[in-house]
Amino acid sequence: MKISARNVLKGKVVDIAKGATTAHVRIDIGGAIVTASITNESVDDLGLVKGMTASAVIKSSDVMVAVE
Amino acid sequence: MKISARNVLKGKVVDIAKGATTAHVRIDIGGAIVTASITNESVDDLGLVKGMTASAVIKSSDVMVAVE
Amino acid sequence: MKISARNVLKGKVVDIAKGATTAHVRIDIGGAIVTASITNESVDDLGLVKGMTASAVIKSSDVMVAVE
Amino acid sequence: MKISARNVLKGKVVDIAKGATTAHVRIDIGGAIVTASITNESVDDLGLVKGMTASAVIKSSDVMVAVE
Amino acid sequence: MKISARNVLKGKVVDIAKGATTAHVRIDIGGAIVTASITNESVDDLGLVKGMTASAVIKSSDVMVAVE
Amino acid sequence: MKISARNVLKGKVVDIAKGATTAHVRIDIGGAIVTASITNESVDDLGLVKGMTASAVIKSSDVMVAVE
Repeated sequence: MKISARNVLKGKVVDIAKGATTAHVRIDIGGAIVTASITNESVDDLGLVKGMTASAVIKSSDVMVAVE
Repeated sequence: MKISARNVLKGKVVDIAKGATTAHVRIDIGGAIVTASITNESVDDLGLVKGMTASAVIKSSDVMVAVE
Repeated sequence: MKISARNVLKGKVVDIAKGATTAHVRIDIGGAIVTASITNESVDDLGLVKGMTASAVIKSSDVMVAVE
Repeated sequence: MKISARNVLKGKVVDIAKGATTAHVRIDIGGAIVTASITNESVDDLGLVKGMTASAVIKSSDVMVAVE
Repeated sequence: MKISARNVLKGKVVDIAKGATTAHVRIDIGGAIVTASITNESVDDLGLVKGMTASAVIKSSDVMVAVE
Repeated sequence: MKISARNVLKGKVVDIAKGATTAHVRIDIGGAIVTASITNESVDDLGLVKGMTASAVIKSSDVMVAVE
């Protein structure tokens, strides 16, 4: 599958915290950690475990820009 | 200002393409390029120019996870 | 690639309207038409053309519910 | 009320799973199941129950496109 | 139609700027101006014009919090 | 930090409800209450407490328009 989302940041899963319905998955993309808030069901479906190679996928319309 | 968004990826603006109302801003976050789709107005407001230091800011509920 | 997004609605591309930076792609998922607002760049990258098989992909946190 | 969101997919509620604050509602839109991640409060407010007619509402900027 | 989105901020349309495919609609919600980025098509469909009563509708998962 | 998000609605935190991983924060922006669904972690990180001054921040591409 190839997706229209412009941002596919490859890394390694470093943490998975499941809640009642929503899980937080942390991916180390090399220098930075990206947190994804996804369903518990998705975690199971993708078979996500710590240490696994995974990508953070983000649609460009969901990216903001900040300056200091 | 401190924001709740979990993902603030610092980098450098490498490209700005303005459309009629929407602009695409590319930020090199070190190894990876993140594309942000924001309003032209925001580009002007933040005074974004190529080479400038800027961060890509993403709410964790907008991050998906993909595996191969 | 397998993605965490819970909603992958398979169909056929019935219309592509490119703007200055943003394109609107319509996919007939069988009975209903889904409109996706994506970058022109994504349209080119995926090689989208009318009549092509494609899926509308939506993260569950982006789906609202309405009743009458 | 008439809304700007381009995608209003009518169907029937087939499952409601409440978590601590977030609920997952599944709507059968005729052939495909759409999952919505909404607040528990919204579930109560709309009086959602299994078997009820309801629509999945999605803004076009939240729809991605994927090809195989 | 009743929607799950928690935030429905009633106001008056004060500006509409159409681009090639995307329009920016500004709604004065009483003291603050909210900008919505929607399709040109939605503007036409809703018959939006300056001075009209309209609401800004926002899903709670799309709201961030900032402090100074 | 200055952010591209067009909508920064200043107000006062009137309620914080933490779930297993996701919290709902209500901000009174003067006449209207805005609900934000953010991570528990963000609540702690920003030190959010009732009565505190805080802003609801929303990207314009996440704002829809509704008319009656």
